[in-house]
Amino acid sequence: MAGIEIIFTLGFVTLAGILAIIFALLLSAWILKQPKGEKKISALSDRIYEGAMTFLNSEYKPLTGFVVIVAIIILLTSIPNQAAYAFIVGAFSSALAGNIGMRIATKSNSRAAVGAKEEISKGLKIGFSSGAVMGMMVVGLALVGLTVIWNFAPDPSIIIGFGFGASSIALFARVGGGIYTKSADMGADLVGKVEEKIPEDDPRNPAVIADNVGDNVGDVAGMGADLFESYAGSIISAITIGYAVTQNQVNIPILSGLGTKLILYPLLLAAFGVLAAMIATGLVRPGRGSDIGSLHSALNKGVFGSAIIMAIFAFLLTYKYLGVINPFYAMISGLAAGIVIGLASEYFTESRFGPTRSIAEASQTGPATNIVTGFSIGLSSTLIPVLAVCAAIGLSYYFAGLYGIPIAAVGMLSTLGMTLATDTYGPVNDNAAGIAEMGEMGSEVRERAEKLDAVGNTTAAIGKGFAIGSAALTSIALFAAYISKVGISPSLLSIQQPRVMIGLFIGGLLTFVFSALTMSAVGKGASAMVKEVRRQFKEMAGILEGETEPEYQRCIEISTNTGLRNMVLPGGLAIVVPIVVGLWNPQVLGGLLAGAIVTGLLLAITLANAGGAWDNAKKYIEEGNLGGKGSEAHAAAVTGDTVGDPFKDTSGPALNILIKVMSMVSLLFVPLFI
Amino acid sequence: MAGIEIIFTLGFVTLAGILAIIFALLLSAWILKQPKGEKKISALSDRIYEGAMTFLNSEYKPLTGFVVIVAIIILLTSIPNQAAYAFIVGAFSSALAGNIGMRIATKSNSRAAVGAKEEISKGLKIGFSSGAVMGMMVVGLALVGLTVIWNFAPDPSIIIGFGFGASSIALFARVGGGIYTKSADMGADLVGKVEEKIPEDDPRNPAVIADNVGDNVGDVAGMGADLFESYAGSIISAITIGYAVTQNQVNIPILSGLGTKLILYPLLLAAFGVLAAMIATGLVRPGRGSDIGSLHSALNKGVFGSAIIMAIFAFLLTYKYLGVINPFYAMISGLAAGIVIGLASEYFTESRFGPTRSIAEASQTGPATNIVTGFSIGLSSTLIPVLAVCAAIGLSYYFAGLYGIPIAAVGMLSTLGMTLATDTYGPVNDNAAGIAEMGEMGSEVRERAEKLDAVGNTTAAIGKGFAIGSAALTSIALFAAYISKVGISPSLLSIQQPRVMIGLFIGGLLTFVFSALTMSAVGKGASAMVKEVRRQFKEMAGILEGETEPEYQRCIEISTNTGLRNMVLPGGLAIVVPIVVGLWNPQVLGGLLAGAIVTGLLLAITLANAGGAWDNAKKYIEEGNLGGKGSEAHAAAVTGDTVGDPFKDTSGPALNILIKVMSMVSLLFVPLFI
Repeated sequence: MAGIEIIFTLGFVTLAGILAIIFALLLSAWILKQPKGEKKISALSDRIYEGAMTFLNSEYKPLTGFVVIVAIIILLTSIPNQAAYAFIVGAFSSALAGNIGMRIATKSNSRAAVGAKEEISKGLKIGFSSGAVMGMMVVGLALVGLTVIWNFAPDPSIIIGFGFGASSIALFARVGGGIYTKSADMGADLVGKVEEKIPEDDPRNPAVIADNVGDNVGDVAGMGADLFESYAGSIISAITIGYAVTQNQVNIPILSGLGTKLILYPLLLAAFGVLAAMIATGLVRPGRGSDIGSLHSALNKGVFGSAIIMAIFAFLLTYKYLGVINPFYAMISGLAAGIVIGLASEYFTESRFGPTRSIAEASQTGPATNIVTGFSIGLSSTLIPVLAVCAAIGLSYYFAGLYGIPIAAVGMLSTLGMTLATDTYGPVNDNAAGIAEMGEMGSEVRERAEKLDAVGNTTAAIGKGFAIGSAALTSIALFAAYISKVGISPSLLSIQQPRVMIGLFIGGLLTFVFSALTMSAVGKGASAMVKEVRRQFKEMAGILEGETEPEYQRCIEISTNTGLRNMVLPGGLAIVVPIVVGLWNPQVLGGLLAGAIVTGLLLAITLANAGGAWDNAKKYIEEGNLGGKGSEAHAAAVTGDTVGDPFKDTSGPALNILIKVMSMVSLLFVPLFI
Repeated sequence: MAGIEIIFTLGFVTLAGILAIIFALLLSAWILKQPKGEKKISALSDRIYEGAMTFLNSEYKPLTGFVVIVAIIILLTSIPNQAAYAFIVGAFSSALAGNIGMRIATKSNSRAAVGAKEEISKGLKIGFSSGAVMGMMVVGLALVGLTVIWNFAPDPSIIIGFGFGASSIALFARVGGGIYTKSADMGADLVGKVEEKIPEDDPRNPAVIADNVGDNVGDVAGMGADLFESYAGSIISAITIGYAVTQNQVNIPILSGLGTKLILYPLLLAAFGVLAAMIATGLVRPGRGSDIGSLHSALNKGVFGSAIIMAIFAFLLTYKYLGVINPFYAMISGLAAGIVIGLASEYFTESRFGPTRSIAEASQTGPATNIVTGFSIGLSSTLIPVLAVCAAIGLSYYFAGLYGIPIAAVGMLSTLGMTLATDTYGPVNDNAAGIAEMGEMGSEVRERAEKLDAVGNTTAAIGKGFAIGSAALTSIALFAAYISKVGISPSLLSIQQPRVMIGLFIGGLLTFVFSALTMSAVGKGASAMVKEVRRQFKEMAGILEGETEPEYQRCIEISTNTGLRNMVLPGGLAIVVPIVVGLWNPQVLGGLLAGAIVTGLLLAITLANAGGAWDNAKKYIEEGNLGGKGSEAHAAAVTGDTVGDPFKDTSGPALNILIKVMSMVSLLFVPLFI
């Protein structure tokens, strides 16, 4: 392929990225024009905004230090120098996407509440638009960053730097944000709901603002950084393996002779994905006076619509551009696996279905049976997703060799602009419900906001399926890239080799220890929060009577400090251990990555689904079933829900990042291992 | 080596086995001579005995069918016919060891209580002797069975049949017994302790006999069958790899020229282990009027004494018999790993140390923080054991190649006669405490029996360390034997192969699904038990007043049926899935075994230690700390303890068997896969 064609193709992809960014900015402008609400309401939103920004800003200080140090280390090693700059750009882009997405989310919450007061579909529109800002910023910045770097330095060793930069930010944002949000949530619930029996989001609860801030730093900024990483990672691993094919390091007969096209193809797929997602946002048009069912179907139209449009685009692109249709099948197997995983997690976590109902029923015999039932449901919920991942690996490899695996991941994430929008939509409306309660906007507004939140659950389940599935496929693709780059003879990587077996054990071990560290950090933070809330209730007269305003700021500080302090060790482990092990022996590191991916995926699904199922079992009882609120069964279900908080929102999602970041750091540091 | 020498050596090992059996019979006779207690007491013991035997007898019916069918399948395939007979002998021996051990355990419980009434050291002696009967029966029957089979059919493909027979019985005994015991325990506690606030082991509780029966079918018969399998499996895998060396299928330079000695060496190690254990039982001599400390040190002398004696024996044997000292180092690395794993689980589960204390403290903020803290401690408790296993793999391989790994496992288990004795000692005294309570023998006797139970905890932790560590090493050795026998080129077993990766995923998945199945069976059984107990309290007047005797038999039937019905699916999966996957593709099966071993070990340790720590956190509070019995913290800790029941006594131990049985079945069925 001629150089000019490459530049033209890259330019097209850059343009799609810029388009996504412009789209996001236009949506932001529209959101900011919506009424923010009367003084009391807007003040609440401002508080949440400030709390969230305080956390992000405090997080940036250590992260900047970390980025500078790692960049210097890269410069000092035999890794190409440009990788250090790509690393900085990747870190900056990821932080920027998260920052903008979260700013808009915290500006949207009161607007969504005010909108829902007017008309429920208005609430949906604002929440969804806010999510779309995040979604489009993520894909836009990633595409612009990747194409600009590839244009100046077409070398996989360099572009991996970009991915590692994104990974590092994602790691700390997910871990720190996850610990923040659940320390606040658990702390607020344990004293507020359990001890003092005041409702969720009650303004008398000193931890209530911290809890609402947490939804943003955890579920919005953390999720955005997570998927920025997966998105960039999947494309980078496809580029790396495509490049290896062009260099004849990997031999895939059916793709021979396609040359540079194999490198540009994943970028083009992503560019068309942006267009598909943009078109599909137009499908999310709830009519005025919509009921829940039609709101639900509006979001579904967006998610499934973008997938169908993308499938058509991908078919045409593959046929016209590559001339070989097989990679299209690989991409479709990824897309299908994502949907299957999403539907499976929906089945396991929604109270319409058996599993969650059985948790609710087990709550009637107390918290212990609630926990045992929920945990065993979490364990068994791994069956379908893991088989789906296996099928995606098998099929994509069958159709397009090693190149097929990252293409499946790219396929799964191609419509990320849309799936992330429906995911981020949830916490925005969760915040809106909180603001409705705290700002005493009346029970109708609160109920509407809660309904809107519930509507997002199904699409969020699909979104989470994509996040989990893509993390697995991306890591496997990066792992394959590591293996092909490190150049160890396959027989030395046989599972029969004690070194590989030891690596598998260490990899599995890391996921367990990492989960333990993040989970116990939440426990410690929640405990500190409980003590502070109890102190305020005791020492400051009039809080519970609603006459004195509690010191919200103190609780925000506790969450912030817990999050920042406790992200260092697990985050550091994820980065340092693969490097140390790789320096010791790259065979062991190969085993380590495989062990971490397998165990990490299993554990992540278990934690996410057990947590989701406990949450919805509690909601099911709160809807008036099995005795309803205030019953013994409800108390047991609240325990399960609280246990599930760090499972589903801290440790589970952090594991997705762990496996990606370890694969990424291994791939980047290969030059040091050989 | 001349044939006559081989026969002589085998005869020596057989003799050691027979000696162990005679020793066990003499101990039994001594126990049966001890006073059984007055009528009320001995009636309770009889009830427990009958309940336990009813379960075993009901279990034998489906198991006999299973054994016959599998034997026929083996006869119909290309596996050597004699393997079918070895399979039957293995199954029978394992069942016999469990049966005798449990008979004696259920005959010892009231005798231990009566003994403790007289003098606390007498209680220890009876409990320990009862455990030693089980320990010696297990090693004796295993050694006799293995040597007789090897004498007539010196072929690894045949002796594996013996191992598979033992595995099958162990699998169903552990799963069925584990579900039985925890259905009864949880059911009894949930209504008795939580709802009606009556003490543990109160005779008014209709589930109390089922609960005490459960201790025997789960912790005695299940544990015995489990370790019978590990013991036989480790020796068989050493024989298999030793045989492969003699056939030049495996090349280990340092061992070249040792010939048949490599096959007989593990048997000799085991024979000397029997002697070491027998000598060490003489060290367990608590003086009259002993305090807890000296009782404790009496048991410790037994465990550590046997290990030291064995180390000396092994050194001399290796030096004199093999002339190459390296396998001795491999054996020592296994023995050391077992002790390290045991000490680590002691650290994580005993209330003298930080982790369990922190669970107790977290109980002050309710059940949710108790659960989160306990679970995260379980996760982090994997660190030391897994590193110890890695070290044992690495060192034993370094010293003696592939042969070193099974030798490490044999080393770890060589003193099983002793470690199993201290393990089985626990449930016997647990039962004694129950009988003291139910038979109203006075609080002093109960306290003494409880102290005796507590004394056993430390040695039991060591014993559990050996069980977990040996399961991992034995499975790895069997896995290595599978790989060397199936003869796939190492490069096809590279972790880079998608088929291997898919295998790793499926193997990991199996451990999660298996745990879910066993755990949810306990949940269902406990729930049925709760309903039955509530029904009896409601419909039968006078139970709670102690005027009417509850229908104990109904509860026993519920546990029995739950155990038997729910062992079929998980047990079947463990056997059928490896065969089906192997028939599909032996590469995938290789990955499956590796994935299951790694993930299974991690999950087993997490479940065992989280459960142990919850249990002891509750006991710590019951000792009067943090508010003591009846406080909010205590209620929270009871929840944690109940959640931990199926973790530590059903799913956790069953995972140890799962990984062994899958490796064993794969190894046996290799002829069908190639």
